Amino acid sequence: MSRSDLERHVRDSALDVVVAASPENVYFLSDTLLLTQRLIPTRLALVVWSSEADPVLIVCTIEEEQVRNESSIRDVRGYFEFKQSPIAVLADVLTEKGLAAGRIGIESRFLAHRYFRELAELLPRATLVDGDEVLDRARVIKSSDEIDRLTRAAQITDRAIRLAFEGAGLGTTELHMADTMASELLSGGANGVAFNVMTTGVHSSMAHPLPSRLEIKPQDVVRTDFGGNFGAYFGGYYSDLARTAVAGTPSQQQETTYKKLFEVHDLLLRTIKPGVRPADLYAQCKSAFEQRGLAFSVPHIGHNIGIVLHEDPMLSPFGQDELQAGMVLAVEPITRSEGMIFHIEDMVVVTESGCRPLSDPYPWSELMRIK
Amino acid sequence: MSRSDLERHVRDSALDVVVAASPENVYFLSDTLLLTQRLIPTRLALVVWSSEADPVLIVCTIEEEQVRNESSIRDVRGYFEFKQSPIAVLADVLTEKGLAAGRIGIESRFLAHRYFRELAELLPRATLVDGDEVLDRARVIKSSDEIDRLTRAAQITDRAIRLAFEGAGLGTTELHMADTMASELLSGGANGVAFNVMTTGVHSSMAHPLPSRLEIKPQDVVRTDFGGNFGAYFGGYYSDLARTAVAGTPSQQQETTYKKLFEVHDLLLRTIKPGVRPADLYAQCKSAFEQRGLAFSVPHIGHNIGIVLHEDPMLSPFGQDELQAGMVLAVEPITRSEGMIFHIEDMVVVTESGCRPLSDPYPWSELMRIK
Repeated sequence: MSRSDLERHVRDSALDVVVAASPENVYFLSDTLLLTQRLIPTRLALVVWSSEADPVLIVCTIEEEQVRNESSIRDVRGYFEFKQSPIAVLADVLTEKGLAAGRIGIESRFLAHRYFRELAELLPRATLVDGDEVLDRARVIKSSDEIDRLTRAAQITDRAIRLAFEGAGLGTTELHMADTMASELLSGGANGVAFNVMTTGVHSSMAHPLPSRLEIKPQDVVRTDFGGNFGAYFGGYYSDLARTAVAGTPSQQQETTYKKLFEVHDLLLRTIKPGVRPADLYAQCKSAFEQRGLAFSVPHIGHNIGIVLHEDPMLSPFGQDELQAGMVLAVEPITRSEGMIFHIEDMVVVTESGCRPLSDPYPWSELMRIK
Repeated sequence: MSRSDLERHVRDSALDVVVAASPENVYFLSDTLLLTQRLIPTRLALVVWSSEADPVLIVCTIEEEQVRNESSIRDVRGYFEFKQSPIAVLADVLTEKGLAAGRIGIESRFLAHRYFRELAELLPRATLVDGDEVLDRARVIKSSDEIDRLTRAAQITDRAIRLAFEGAGLGTTELHMADTMASELLSGGANGVAFNVMTTGVHSSMAHPLPSRLEIKPQDVVRTDFGGNFGAYFGGYYSDLARTAVAGTPSQQQETTYKKLFEVHDLLLRTIKPGVRPADLYAQCKSAFEQRGLAFSVPHIGHNIGIVLHEDPMLSPFGQDELQAGMVLAVEPITRSEGMIFHIEDMVVVTESGCRPLSDPYPWSELMRIK
């Protein structure tokens, strides 16, 4: 991601200014993640960003001291909660910058309607437009420093999963495996666990249930979908990997399903390169599933990943923008067999000529058996 | 909280229907917390709730299986992500219920403007009004089952803090104390750590920085503001407590500041009862601070707590609705001395005649010394 790219996208969209309101984009522009911005959604934090003037950060007075210590933004405006409206402070800042009649990009996919309405009422001459995509575009291509971070994130996550699966046996609970992954992730250097799906037995039909005291039984499908936070314990860079194993001796059908799924996964990794359109990759994946008789029912087969877990481009049937070098993708073919979900997910960086895995898919090329 | 109260509030507000969109209110109405609703904000989950008809739950097809297993709502509508808009499904449901020209309560403090706009365009004859307060009001008074849960949450949190403070000494790091609290909380029965503030030394001037490798030095103020998730590891019921200690022998000023702060805390606990207005409690607190020469600069001195961390009534200068029996409040006077924050926070339930602490403030009536 790059703030200079943002300046370009702001100009290209003929915006005078963009206002960030989500924790991710405030972090992107200010280098600050405020705990209470996530926990207390009414305690808004906002960044006013233009290519012309210095940025302004608006936060509750309670968080001012932290922001002055941490943020790269020097112009910080505190609002006294309940007494002052953060949106009124925003309107004042925009007016002060001469933008009361400007073309203002808003995170309309994040900013709640009530705040939007307040801003529209305070600045009746302004044109409020969707600014999310401008911010999204500036975050799409990762810098080499970001790729290093995401590589480390993928590797720590991969290792935590391997250790949990290798240490499991018949009778091990989902919770025990999930806790093992979490503690390995944290001791490996993650700042937080973002999500921690671990399913066996009757849970295998659900995408994201909570880990439970269910014990692994013979021929259970054991599946994880696991991600951490890196750089901040309630945000920062995400990892996102999925692995599937079977307990004891797999059935013929389980063996075959997994083998075919991995074939498709490998095919996707060999297909990804600059210039490929997500819609075509999705269609190719769907067709590879159908050729092999695998059930296909997912709305996407992966996503860009960074300081947002699912960010554009989504690998969906509607993705028309070509892949570019420097994107980091989580590639995740998923199928169901006898009601149970099989899921493989790796993180890759798009290179000039193809893609390079950040996690390691190949130890999982054959169906792992939990002893 | 109570769904029958909600029915009453929906009728009192002359709403035909209320649409929940936030994780908390979807949980309130459906008994389901979807991991991806928090992680992937564009993957909307919505509940359509009226006092006349059966409720409807709208979720991404990926989460349908989980919802059919967990939710008390039987009418579940799945939308296929990217291909189908959840808001279009919502508009269809409202139309099917004969409400296309109805008075529809929306969570306008949560629902992003873009979704609101889409709904307004799809239902041009509908009147979309702020429905947040109707939902808030239905959650204000806790049932005895909820008070039991919150009591357990407060006690587990209280114990985790005590153990971390009692086990600390000069040289202990913030991170070590925060990790001790977290693991005690989880082994005590919490489902997750919601926030984990632990400050010493130079961090003592900031409200919510991340725990770090800073070590406790003599005369450091050591402060925590700590809460867990109970009932779900990324949501459910919250706890929220704060404690302050000093390392080694406190200075005279530290001793005096804490003593006065606890006096005010105790005064607040003795004042809270049904009929008291939050604004008056805030004014009384401010005046008690000023009488004692304590710095007062906070926008609120506490808040209602439940499945939302800060919920109405806030104990702010603008709170006009009287306290009622069955509210659970986090009471938190805060001051600064020599730049360092002193913070005490306990959870109490409002009873018929006063309030009863759910955590135990009195072991902290004298300034704790970390040896």
